[in-house]
Amino acid sequence: MTYCVAMRLNRGLVFAADTRTSAGNDNVATYRKLYYWRRPGQRVIVLCSAGNLAITQSVVSLLNEKLVEDLSPGAESLFTVPSLYRAARLVGEALREVRKADGADLEASGSSFNANFLFGGQIGDEAPRLFHIYPEGNFIEATDDTPFFQIGEHKYGKPIIDRVVEPNMRLGEAAKLALLSFDSTLRSNISVGLPIDLLIYERDSLDVRRQKRIEADDEYFRKLSSAWSEALRSAFANIEEFKV
Amino acid sequence: MTYCVAMRLNRGLVFAADTRTSAGNDNVATYRKLYYWRRPGQRVIVLCSAGNLAITQSVVSLLNEKLVEDLSPGAESLFTVPSLYRAARLVGEALREVRKADGADLEASGSSFNANFLFGGQIGDEAPRLFHIYPEGNFIEATDDTPFFQIGEHKYGKPIIDRVVEPNMRLGEAAKLALLSFDSTLRSNISVGLPIDLLIYERDSLDVRRQKRIEADDEYFRKLSSAWSEALRSAFANIEEFKV
Repeated sequence: MTYCVAMRLNRGLVFAADTRTSAGNDNVATYRKLYYWRRPGQRVIVLCSAGNLAITQSVVSLLNEKLVEDLSPGAESLFTVPSLYRAARLVGEALREVRKADGADLEASGSSFNANFLFGGQIGDEAPRLFHIYPEGNFIEATDDTPFFQIGEHKYGKPIIDRVVEPNMRLGEAAKLALLSFDSTLRSNISVGLPIDLLIYERDSLDVRRQKRIEADDEYFRKLSSAWSEALRSAFANIEEFKV
Repeated sequence: MTYCVAMRLNRGLVFAADTRTSAGNDNVATYRKLYYWRRPGQRVIVLCSAGNLAITQSVVSLLNEKLVEDLSPGAESLFTVPSLYRAARLVGEALREVRKADGADLEASGSSFNANFLFGGQIGDEAPRLFHIYPEGNFIEATDDTPFFQIGEHKYGKPIIDRVVEPNMRLGEAAKLALLSFDSTLRSNISVGLPIDLLIYERDSLDVRRQKRIEADDEYFRKLSSAWSEALRSAFANIEEFKV
């Protein structure tokens, strides 16, 4: 499995994705699931993927081919579309192309066509936007009411985000929240694993300036994890016991 | 959906079950999913159910019929078996009987045979025991390494239990933990709903002395919920922000 989370805040966007893939318990590997494309000063586009790796990698390959004039003459690409909505449509089209190629055989073997994407960024004068793209190729957009999306193993890490997320958070706070959500997920589900790829996009920067791969020995993450454990245990101890 | 959790502790057992059932969003109702049987001084047996209500209610009906000599002459029942292991086998047999009656038609309509049980208690001189019974009728038993089981919508409420549960907890502490786990689940998933049925079994009491239905206006649960929210937010605020 996978866990990815992204937030759309007033100050920009935060993306985090784990890197564990497994085709059975004896076939576990590390694959990057966070991708980005940028033209500094013009646009930044970020994609996080969950689901069948053959599908999600094919989608990224198709998106990349479109960037190369020789491979896709005259095609719209992530570097030419005028809005993030149009960019999300390109991802949807790529997904449908992969489904056309592989869907029937996946179905014949009893596998579902499983691929979800978090997709966001900023193009020119538009405000930063964030989408959740479904396996069918359609998508929804984050709003102030619901400023975050999760894909993959999302349930363990949802309660803390539900309680804390606010569109007016600082980006460093939101990154802390994303990592706490990961910490709960990592503890409760072995199909999600370190390292975590983290990307913080500052509104109107139109460039990627803050990103980090968080490894198992990352000092900040280890401190966060132990401070959180301690805080939870002490909060638990301080609440009155149940009496009937 | 449903959420049920049970813990096997040195001092006894704690069970909690929600009461929401839904057959579609416009067909939501309240049903008890926590059942118990007792012969004071001899045995206490507790069952929590998740899954298809037609299946789980049938299982309970079959278990109850076996208690009545006229309906099941000479049959072993929850009141006659010599161990909790044998009692769990009876539940498994009832499940298989329901599968024989209804399984083929459920399958034909594309529904899975979905029913899970938490099943525990104490019979005579045996120590208290706790089992998770699967839809197939087989089961596993809780141990000191893994002293709790969850069924239904278990993921939201798992991280806090993973961090805090210990076999040597007091029963009131364990009940508090179960309710915190419910609080996270209720906030993040509308298919799980109040009231919650809570039962605390004290080791060697061989009777049910502590149980409560926790309604939406329950004072303890409301205080617990707001104290926990506040503690989590303040713990979050006190952790250092992420900086790249």
